[in-house]
Amino acid sequence: MKTTADYSSDVESALRALPLPEGKFDNLYAPIRYALSAGGKRLRPVMVLMAADAFGEASAKAMDAALGVELFHNFTLLHDDVMDNSEVRRGRQSVHAKYGVNSAILSGDTMLTLANAQVGKVDDTVLRPVLDVFNAMALNVYEGQQLDMDFETGKDVTLDDYLLMTSLKTGALLGAAVQIGALIGGASEKEAKKMYEYGMNIGLAFQIQDDWLDTFGDSITFGKPIGGDIANNKKTYLYLAVGAASKSDAEALAIAMQLPEKEMKIKTVKRIYEKAGAGEMCQKAVAAYMTKAMGALRHTSLSDESKEAFRKFAEKLVGRKK
Amino acid sequence: MKTTADYSSDVESALRALPLPEGKFDNLYAPIRYALSAGGKRLRPVMVLMAADAFGEASAKAMDAALGVELFHNFTLLHDDVMDNSEVRRGRQSVHAKYGVNSAILSGDTMLTLANAQVGKVDDTVLRPVLDVFNAMALNVYEGQQLDMDFETGKDVTLDDYLLMTSLKTGALLGAAVQIGALIGGASEKEAKKMYEYGMNIGLAFQIQDDWLDTFGDSITFGKPIGGDIANNKKTYLYLAVGAASKSDAEALAIAMQLPEKEMKIKTVKRIYEKAGAGEMCQKAVAAYMTKAMGALRHTSLSDESKEAFRKFAEKLVGRKK
Repeated sequence: MKTTADYSSDVESALRALPLPEGKFDNLYAPIRYALSAGGKRLRPVMVLMAADAFGEASAKAMDAALGVELFHNFTLLHDDVMDNSEVRRGRQSVHAKYGVNSAILSGDTMLTLANAQVGKVDDTVLRPVLDVFNAMALNVYEGQQLDMDFETGKDVTLDDYLLMTSLKTGALLGAAVQIGALIGGASEKEAKKMYEYGMNIGLAFQIQDDWLDTFGDSITFGKPIGGDIANNKKTYLYLAVGAASKSDAEALAIAMQLPEKEMKIKTVKRIYEKAGAGEMCQKAVAAYMTKAMGALRHTSLSDESKEAFRKFAEKLVGRKK
Repeated sequence: MKTTADYSSDVESALRALPLPEGKFDNLYAPIRYALSAGGKRLRPVMVLMAADAFGEASAKAMDAALGVELFHNFTLLHDDVMDNSEVRRGRQSVHAKYGVNSAILSGDTMLTLANAQVGKVDDTVLRPVLDVFNAMALNVYEGQQLDMDFETGKDVTLDDYLLMTSLKTGALLGAAVQIGALIGGASEKEAKKMYEYGMNIGLAFQIQDDWLDTFGDSITFGKPIGGDIANNKKTYLYLAVGAASKSDAEALAIAMQLPEKEMKIKTVKRIYEKAGAGEMCQKAVAAYMTKAMGALRHTSLSDESKEAFRKFAEKLVGRKK
């Protein structure tokens, strides 16, 4: 099996070689080229390739599907940034900030169809199961995004709501990435589902870690200002877990969230989190999801070497500082 | 073969039976139910069913793909209405006017994925060719919409540009509808392509007729106010064909389009069109595309009865008053 860095650079080259016409339709395809050139770790396509390799199929065969998964992920970023009014993505202007909202919508639609077409290039033998997984995942991601938007205005968001939203918006795509890779690699439907479970659970661990970093991370290594979630009243794992554990902490948080001055608000909320042991709560939850993910791997026919590679991948993903 | 009215009512029932979950994700699926309940003639899915029947496969088998085509069409309406800032659709609020822009974007995305999933329900034997046709069509539609948006700000739009835009935005979907139906019905790839040609050409005839009706139709039977294209400086077939035929008419049109008062502007432009024989130009173009469409049918193995049904369908479509 290659290293993740090797897979990642394979993905990068393949993305650059994607035929995105210039000329007459440049207003449609230029925003796509821009979005895809933002770089990043290409986690999701790497997961497709890793899983395909691990189950025995040369990764070149899985590259089309891997690119489809990456196109899908980037399509969601284009549309989410419009919906969330986010002007910045990876330190650059978001697509709608640079090209306008209409371009972000239409070029996003184009990326979704390109994603479908790429994923649809898999061999006939796995075409239907792969498409079924892909389409079901896409619906889950939209449902997760809908819940996320609902939470902004909803008052009674519970920890369970959060976990459902996160499993749909984040976990489903990581799960589908390894499931699709596994199917291409020749895994049985049952094993491929176990791989989905692995991806889903590291997705949940990843998001909880991300929530923790947003409040307690280092702004330089995290790559964005610390405390953004608190400033924006986001219903994070920290907020909901601390609130679920203690009624008085829940009340204190609700009041602190109303503080008008941003720095004071962040400081106060952080103090409540620290006193309640939010860091430990996150650690415990992350560890539990990691254990589930590793448990899922155990139910596959993967070699010990491959299992170890997926374990390392998960630890790196969740242990990341940015 | 059934009548188009029968096919249309079959589509209507099948659409109502589509599983669109209520409950937790209602904010995502309610706008879809609303969009699909607007009614209409369901032309595109009817074309899928007609073609499948004509080539020999019971239409029930083609219904999934027909619904996919209708879902796709409605997805484009949701997003186009956002991009064009259109508040009204079929005499009701457009989806973004009723549910907000974010809902129109996200529920539209959901409809595109549902469309892919529906179309992907066809038999294994035709799955790949049908998906290839469907995805290529979708890209064409986006390219057409991009050109249409470009035209709003572009100064030098030619008649050829218009025909390219229309073939992509309107013709491609009608073409793909009958091509997909034909493939499901067991047509050869070559015959199915001829059916695409039929759909493409009636699409062009349809759009030119639509442009003519927008200026010279009856506002009651046409279902919207007359002169809207002139009021909005749209580069229609009338405008571009008259301008292409005579330099002095082109200049007169360019000046008349700058008239500040709407009624005066519509009247003046209409008078230029009338003097230039725009009605006849449209008639000729429509007749030419209809001839091409009928020519394409001749290169298929369709029975005379089926050819006649497709001829009648085209005439009804293009001869419509609304």
